Amino acid sequence: MKPWFTFDILAQDGRARAGIFHTPHGDIPTPIFAPVGTQATVKSLTPAHLEELGANLVLANTYHLYLRPGADLVAEMGGLHHFMQWPHPILTDSGGFQVFSLSQIRKIDSDGVTFKSHIDGSSHRFTPEIAIEIQEKLGADIVMAFDECATPHDRTYNERAIQRTHLWAERCLRAKTRQDQALFGIVQGGVFKDLREQSAQFIASLGFPGHAIGGLSVGETKDEMKAMIDCTVAVLPENKPRYLMGVGTPEDLLNGIQRGVDIFDCVLPTRLARHQAAMTRNGRINLMNSGHARDPKPIDETCPCYTCQKFSRAYLRHLIVAKEMLAATLISIHNLATLLILVREARTAIQAGNFTAYANHYLSNYYQVEP
Amino acid sequence: MKPWFTFDILAQDGRARAGIFHTPHGDIPTPIFAPVGTQATVKSLTPAHLEELGANLVLANTYHLYLRPGADLVAEMGGLHHFMQWPHPILTDSGGFQVFSLSQIRKIDSDGVTFKSHIDGSSHRFTPEIAIEIQEKLGADIVMAFDECATPHDRTYNERAIQRTHLWAERCLRAKTRQDQALFGIVQGGVFKDLREQSAQFIASLGFPGHAIGGLSVGETKDEMKAMIDCTVAVLPENKPRYLMGVGTPEDLLNGIQRGVDIFDCVLPTRLARHQAAMTRNGRINLMNSGHARDPKPIDETCPCYTCQKFSRAYLRHLIVAKEMLAATLISIHNLATLLILVREARTAIQAGNFTAYANHYLSNYYQVEP
Repeated sequence: MKPWFTFDILAQDGRARAGIFHTPHGDIPTPIFAPVGTQATVKSLTPAHLEELGANLVLANTYHLYLRPGADLVAEMGGLHHFMQWPHPILTDSGGFQVFSLSQIRKIDSDGVTFKSHIDGSSHRFTPEIAIEIQEKLGADIVMAFDECATPHDRTYNERAIQRTHLWAERCLRAKTRQDQALFGIVQGGVFKDLREQSAQFIASLGFPGHAIGGLSVGETKDEMKAMIDCTVAVLPENKPRYLMGVGTPEDLLNGIQRGVDIFDCVLPTRLARHQAAMTRNGRINLMNSGHARDPKPIDETCPCYTCQKFSRAYLRHLIVAKEMLAATLISIHNLATLLILVREARTAIQAGNFTAYANHYLSNYYQVEP
Repeated sequence: MKPWFTFDILAQDGRARAGIFHTPHGDIPTPIFAPVGTQATVKSLTPAHLEELGANLVLANTYHLYLRPGADLVAEMGGLHHFMQWPHPILTDSGGFQVFSLSQIRKIDSDGVTFKSHIDGSSHRFTPEIAIEIQEKLGADIVMAFDECATPHDRTYNERAIQRTHLWAERCLRAKTRQDQALFGIVQGGVFKDLREQSAQFIASLGFPGHAIGGLSVGETKDEMKAMIDCTVAVLPENKPRYLMGVGTPEDLLNGIQRGVDIFDCVLPTRLARHQAAMTRNGRINLMNSGHARDPKPIDETCPCYTCQKFSRAYLRHLIVAKEMLAATLISIHNLATLLILVREARTAIQAGNFTAYANHYLSNYYQVEP
């Protein structure tokens, strides 16, 4: 029988790779950026908007969906693909990161985590087995091992956290029953090279069909992030996709791709959109600034997205000032377009063997100030 | 030279008519329902959504746009059609209704109204001339005379208000300079038959290319509304379109069409959508009700809209409970579809000569309770 999940590397340019990850809901061209649909919706957008943007992989959050509407309900409604009407690939995280970052009062033991819901304070418990059970009910194509995400600079905590993460990874593999889901292991280790290498070696030894680098973009410096990607990727096998969790600025994407990362996700483009900030290939623009009030130009004259093809900065600023929901929708469309175009261009550049030139050109035009 | 605005009546069935109102931005098939884009956006929808729904005429509010972003800015951005990217017909009201209903502390004199902005309390003045000047800057296809909308049951106030409304209608006609805008006169008179007739006679005598019935759907009974439409329509000329302002339930639309009304507008479908209520041809549904939590059915299995073709009540309820913006978008799409399909079906029925049967059938299936 043909395996459910295979990863073909089509081209390599330095450490950057262009590939295809085959899943039951379609092929994922890599490198790819996954928009985040925390509560089974990419905020303010319809699935039709996402399809028009050429989005492929969408992420949803296990922690949120477990609490609301509940994994049983999603399963009863035919699983996440049918529930949210995204017939293309979906990835769910394990809930680990949210349990540590969002929930109130948590008690961690070697078996799992007891936490209180950020919604109503009710008490819940996640273990590796429960995280897998929930994700099997949700039914995403890619599911994640339950891990412990430590604060990046605390060495003692990270030493303990990777031990737990490793034991939990083994338990997740044993708990898994669905063949139509790919379980990815997660490498932790904070900003410590030896811990990252140790974690990558252990996780790689378990035979996951893909590997994630967790615990980055949570307070470390850019140089620390780059160093951790480098030392982790050096250990992870070449023939499996690599996923850098929670990363979503243009620079971070380019730096990750350059270092051999294939998959990214981040709430940044849609969150910034709800806070009036447009992401462009030249940096961020705060559309609330009064300088845009009478500006007939689109956010980015070179951008092919619906927002830039149709609407002026003056109109977008008016929507923001008037507190109209359409502002978030239109800016989200544009911000996602910026990142989705970036990964598509990066893929083409890798296949053409000129990724470094592409990345350098992009970064040389990129500054985080008002253009 | 071909006149900018002509009204062709294609079929008549009782007093109901099927027509076409020709405007510089395209033909308006009547009867028609106009979604309301108060602040130059139909809340939570893109223009592409509206086009997909087959919307044609969209209403925008002069009072709101005058205050924010300002009529000069809209004019500078190429007018409302370009600003909001709605290349089809647009109607602006005169600001009269909002000045009386929304603004704080107003002083009315025979020349106009001084009022304080509901946004920042700043002081402003509207006169018939100013209302026309603003609407000429906004640039809609159909613009409205500045009128005084009185409380419906106060006879003395209505007697005074129609005198003012009539004088102001004449001043609006004199102030008007753009030939590519059709100025509609507004009939007032509360719930008083003789005042409505008197007002309709006077307004009709001024030679407007279309007439509106104002001051209804503001607290009177359904029977009073029907009686006022009847006595007003009896006086208004046959060969001009008739617009019943601010009306938007399925029953009111059918009752209006039956009585010879051609144009309707209302915030109801989009406002209800933001309050979790779906409008269907069988009545309203509160999607927040827990009975929908595990319901895999769409809002209306017979509805061809994007929302009903794709999403379950369970998903919509989840979006509502999770406070996701997409709830308003998807329910707005459906609610507008309900009314836009109703007016299209009504038009077909009029042309087939069976409007009464259509309306009776619709109303017999319509009940404002949970289906």
